Amino acid sequence: MSEQDPIVIFTPSGKRGRVARGTPVLDAARRLGVDLDSVCGGRGICSKCQITPSFGEFSKHGVTARPGALSDWNAVEQRYDDKRGLAKGRRLGCQARIEGDIVIDVPPESQVHKQVIRKNADARAIAMDPATRLYLVDVAEPDMHEPSGDFQRLAKALADQWQISGATADLSLLARLQGVLRRGAWQVTVAVHHDHTGAAPRITEVWPGLHETGLYGLAIDLGSTTIAAHLTDLETGEVRAASGLMNPQIRFGEDLMSRVSYVMMNPGGEVEMRDVVRKALSDLANSLSQEAGIDPALIVEATIVCNPVMHHLLLGIDPTELGQAPFALATSEALCLSVADLELTRINPRARVYILPCIAGHVGADAAAVALSEAPEQSDDLVLIIDVGTNAEILLGNRDRVLACSSPTGPAFEGAQISSGQRAAPGAIERVRIDPVTKIPRFRIIGCDLWSDEEGFAEVSAASGITGICGSGIIEAVAEMRMAGLLDPSGLIGSATQTGSDRSLPEGRTHAYLLHDGREDGGPLITVTQGDIRAIQLAKSALYAGARLLMDEMEVEHVDRVVLAGAFGAHISPLHAMVLGMIPDAPVDRVTSAGNAAGTGARLALCNRSARALIERNVRRITKVETAIAPRFQEHFVAANAIPHATAPFPHLARAVTLPQVGFNTEGGAGGGRRRRKRG
Amino acid sequence: MSEQDPIVIFTPSGKRGRVARGTPVLDAARRLGVDLDSVCGGRGICSKCQITPSFGEFSKHGVTARPGALSDWNAVEQRYDDKRGLAKGRRLGCQARIEGDIVIDVPPESQVHKQVIRKNADARAIAMDPATRLYLVDVAEPDMHEPSGDFQRLAKALADQWQISGATADLSLLARLQGVLRRGAWQVTVAVHHDHTGAAPRITEVWPGLHETGLYGLAIDLGSTTIAAHLTDLETGEVRAASGLMNPQIRFGEDLMSRVSYVMMNPGGEVEMRDVVRKALSDLANSLSQEAGIDPALIVEATIVCNPVMHHLLLGIDPTELGQAPFALATSEALCLSVADLELTRINPRARVYILPCIAGHVGADAAAVALSEAPEQSDDLVLIIDVGTNAEILLGNRDRVLACSSPTGPAFEGAQISSGQRAAPGAIERVRIDPVTKIPRFRIIGCDLWSDEEGFAEVSAASGITGICGSGIIEAVAEMRMAGLLDPSGLIGSATQTGSDRSLPEGRTHAYLLHDGREDGGPLITVTQGDIRAIQLAKSALYAGARLLMDEMEVEHVDRVVLAGAFGAHISPLHAMVLGMIPDAPVDRVTSAGNAAGTGARLALCNRSARALIERNVRRITKVETAIAPRFQEHFVAANAIPHATAPFPHLARAVTLPQVGFNTEGGAGGGRRRRKRG
Repeated sequence: MSEQDPIVIFTPSGKRGRVARGTPVLDAARRLGVDLDSVCGGRGICSKCQITPSFGEFSKHGVTARPGALSDWNAVEQRYDDKRGLAKGRRLGCQARIEGDIVIDVPPESQVHKQVIRKNADARAIAMDPATRLYLVDVAEPDMHEPSGDFQRLAKALADQWQISGATADLSLLARLQGVLRRGAWQVTVAVHHDHTGAAPRITEVWPGLHETGLYGLAIDLGSTTIAAHLTDLETGEVRAASGLMNPQIRFGEDLMSRVSYVMMNPGGEVEMRDVVRKALSDLANSLSQEAGIDPALIVEATIVCNPVMHHLLLGIDPTELGQAPFALATSEALCLSVADLELTRINPRARVYILPCIAGHVGADAAAVALSEAPEQSDDLVLIIDVGTNAEILLGNRDRVLACSSPTGPAFEGAQISSGQRAAPGAIERVRIDPVTKIPRFRIIGCDLWSDEEGFAEVSAASGITGICGSGIIEAVAEMRMAGLLDPSGLIGSATQTGSDRSLPEGRTHAYLLHDGREDGGPLITVTQGDIRAIQLAKSALYAGARLLMDEMEVEHVDRVVLAGAFGAHISPLHAMVLGMIPDAPVDRVTSAGNAAGTGARLALCNRSARALIERNVRRITKVETAIAPRFQEHFVAANAIPHATAPFPHLARAVTLPQVGFNTEGGAGGGRRRRKRG
Repeated sequence: MSEQDPIVIFTPSGKRGRVARGTPVLDAARRLGVDLDSVCGGRGICSKCQITPSFGEFSKHGVTARPGALSDWNAVEQRYDDKRGLAKGRRLGCQARIEGDIVIDVPPESQVHKQVIRKNADARAIAMDPATRLYLVDVAEPDMHEPSGDFQRLAKALADQWQISGATADLSLLARLQGVLRRGAWQVTVAVHHDHTGAAPRITEVWPGLHETGLYGLAIDLGSTTIAAHLTDLETGEVRAASGLMNPQIRFGEDLMSRVSYVMMNPGGEVEMRDVVRKALSDLANSLSQEAGIDPALIVEATIVCNPVMHHLLLGIDPTELGQAPFALATSEALCLSVADLELTRINPRARVYILPCIAGHVGADAAAVALSEAPEQSDDLVLIIDVGTNAEILLGNRDRVLACSSPTGPAFEGAQISSGQRAAPGAIERVRIDPVTKIPRFRIIGCDLWSDEEGFAEVSAASGITGICGSGIIEAVAEMRMAGLLDPSGLIGSATQTGSDRSLPEGRTHAYLLHDGREDGGPLITVTQGDIRAIQLAKSALYAGARLLMDEMEVEHVDRVVLAGAFGAHISPLHAMVLGMIPDAPVDRVTSAGNAAGTGARLALCNRSARALIERNVRRITKVETAIAPRFQEHFVAANAIPHATAPFPHLARAVTLPQVGFNTEGGAGGGRRRRKRG
């Protein structure tokens, strides 16, 4: 370029250079590596390349842009404006030509790699770079003298017009192709799946002319108990619909081990369970596309995260090996599949499915997704990430090293195995406070913003009733009981005489704490029994022991911060979790919730193919720690039984709250207990 | 290697070199690039690496091999000999170590790329190099401290032990894998498909321990009328069973155009036809594996050749575009598919299917297979290859250039549209001779080696009866009628008075020739009618015109040789074909039959993956000539109506036979006709 050629400066990237007079803005952007979108490739019909020119003196950039620095508004732009409307000041980048020095702004919606701000507290952005994108192509008509297949001419057009070479397609696309090419008068839009694996690009759908109704993907979090999915716009990253349903495999076994047992007892059981979960995924896809009002054929991708047993059951692989040492996965790496492989329907029949890699036989693609979402390998301080579920996935690490394990907490945290326990649903007690003097509780239920002692609670709560306690409720209840002196560090509930409270009800040789008596109104009696405490102690000990094991491996005595992931994690009170001794001691304000981090990881992998490459690379670098064979796990587990726990001091917790020094025995005697312990 | 190291010479390759003393023969062979097979990779269990050492003075090679030049017979060899038996003089190449100068013969059965001599006259050999081969691997056991999937450890073993990296597998293999690995105590044999396309190697089957029951493939010739397949041993190339069945699509239309019409009239008709032909292929696979006594799971590959309409109907693609100019194929290139794509059963569910490329909209993968089998591009002289069928595929070429076209001959050559016509089956007249003086015919029928005037014919032919005329019979009958003066060059049958024969029967205003009257014995009256002659004239004119069109394009007036391909081509008498004017004039002894060249092409592609690369390359180089739009095709077609034909001199034919100068008219007058013509 000579000094005579105009200078063009793109904002916000700041990229600049000289281009030949008359160069279309789109071409200039491509030449300068500026991120400016286009589906139609400069034909003036897709409008993805809208830009905003600026005129005037730009001392910062050292240029003066005069009117006339861009070619005049042309007929193509006028037609587009008449038909669809162009915002004031906007031009089509493929039509406007650079005639003089100019500054051109690329608005966010015209960027290919749009930044999508995630909704939760954490402001990390997703840069859009999905594996599937749209391209408009003009295909050469058939010529008897140079016979070649319609598909071969389409592939050549993609190579010539978009530099995408070696494209392939399934038979079902070939069967559609000839009609679409002719309906589109040899101009078609293709959806091309081109992922991070180096596999050949694959044409997954074709539409006549310019396709303008978008492309969508499903990010699926396939849990043992619930299956959640986000229907996501693959151009903007926007979630168009979110929904969940119960995993129908529950009828074969509540938890993973009972499903593994089912297969061991019932040969072919893995096929039954495979079929029901595949059908559930199809049903979920169906309800999401209906909710969003989107043609299922526009759903061209899905990503799936799940634990190893669900992973195998989804793939139709007998999970028996995962139920016994050495917990060998049939396959551990990420999988790129077709929906046909998984027999999914209610989605484009040529859609591609990406399943994140498993970390180990006990630490699945769901943990990998959490790692992708929370990026411990980019953390300067040492972060402990806990995804609480029937199995807890635990990650500990920083820039230097990341460790992972899983811990069999069992379903107590999800309200199962608890006498008044229930799933998180309207009517479930989710928050609990106990007056340390009167021992009288107040609580909140899901679906009502008032506390139970606030005015109007009775009216508002009448709709759902007060039905039971969910996971976060039981954690708060147990921690509050400990703080109110109703419970000693060994987990024993004191009697009325021991605790000075008439809410302590005798129950055989033990006691229960009366949380709510709804029997007058036909509701349940909701208590926290000694059995409930024991179940929670087992669960929290497993969780804590897993975290401690990783801390041992990392040779640290404390962590800088704790992230609670999982839908459930979002509802746990950090302070109560620490009083209970679920998690190691840490500054209370540095215990945060990441929301559904596994689901977020699935969305990241859906929206950005380099996230797939990243997690595949990171998974290989994560050090796996197997809790089942670590002798210290048992030690930690036993020591963690105490509330809070007996394995390490907890200075941060001590600063936040004073725990009463109580100790009970089953005989009902008040006063110091067998297992009274010193506090740090 | 130093001068101290022994010299080893392998025969028959003649490859030689020095190797370190103590090197196993198998290792020496690999190092010197000698083709010595091994499935077990030197573990002494597969016995594929058997060799024969020679001792003595080899002046030709300049070495003297002394006893002791190979290590002693060892325990592994003894065990193998006890269990399976080793032929005298044979050693296991993986056990015998080179201790001194030696000459080692690799017997044909120990070569990886065995040469398989084809059965037909043409002695070109098939070198075995199938896409799928067996490998024995020892897989690392799972380790909790380094968790990785069983599949990943299998893939690593393949890479480490056989230098096959990046192997992939379908979900159904992953579902089998864990059980097989454990049953085989972590030693398994895998079938790996690794074709010519650069696609990742794919593990298609896995067996515990050493798999010794072979690997098989199907070479399928999918014709409009019949489907034929050869079940072939992928290690030796041997055909283990061959079978055929009628194409069940016949019920939708006898010929291709009527099947295309069926789809045009019945939306979704392509799905019906797809389903019946896929089922037929599965049935054929089933009957072949039963006939050969082979487990269908051992059939791990298939190759398919077919015309373009069958190609699309097999793939489930609407063939309408193939029925009208510009005859656009949906896809023209070779296809590498899974059996699942084609819904084939009775074959390994992970078997791979290779469909040869199509040359053009009218010239299919069957023509490509003929080109692969007959290799016109390697011919020094100019060869015309004609695959006679409902559509004739015609190739013309030599080392410089190859042309191809197809010509719509219709089904007359297959016995259809002929008054006494029938398919080639026992009882059908297949050869005819007519005494030029008495005009009395004699003939042979399929299933009987005697001529009809030979003693014992009546007895032998009684079994089938004399039922009609097949394609080769009608060609001979028409040519013999012409030579006997019963037919004039215009194709008119003379009356009894014109021909001096009482075998000329009046039939309306025309005449018929009485070939056989079986009515006394309850059999049919078999005649050649004027209508039959016209049908044959149309068919042969189309064939001839196609060949002429290619000759025009090549700018030649004659060809050096003619190859008649197709099952039918094998039965055509070259002289009679030339008298009829089906084929251009050529030395009679240079008109040969190639048998089922399309089927041979399918077998070549099955047994040798480089044959696939070769035909894909060659197909691109073939010049396609479209008969439907060439104005000269119509000219040639009309001129070719005469018997022999009126478009070129036929000096070779004239030297072989003298054709009577006759000419008839429909009024029955004898003597010279309207269209008498000079002979070259």
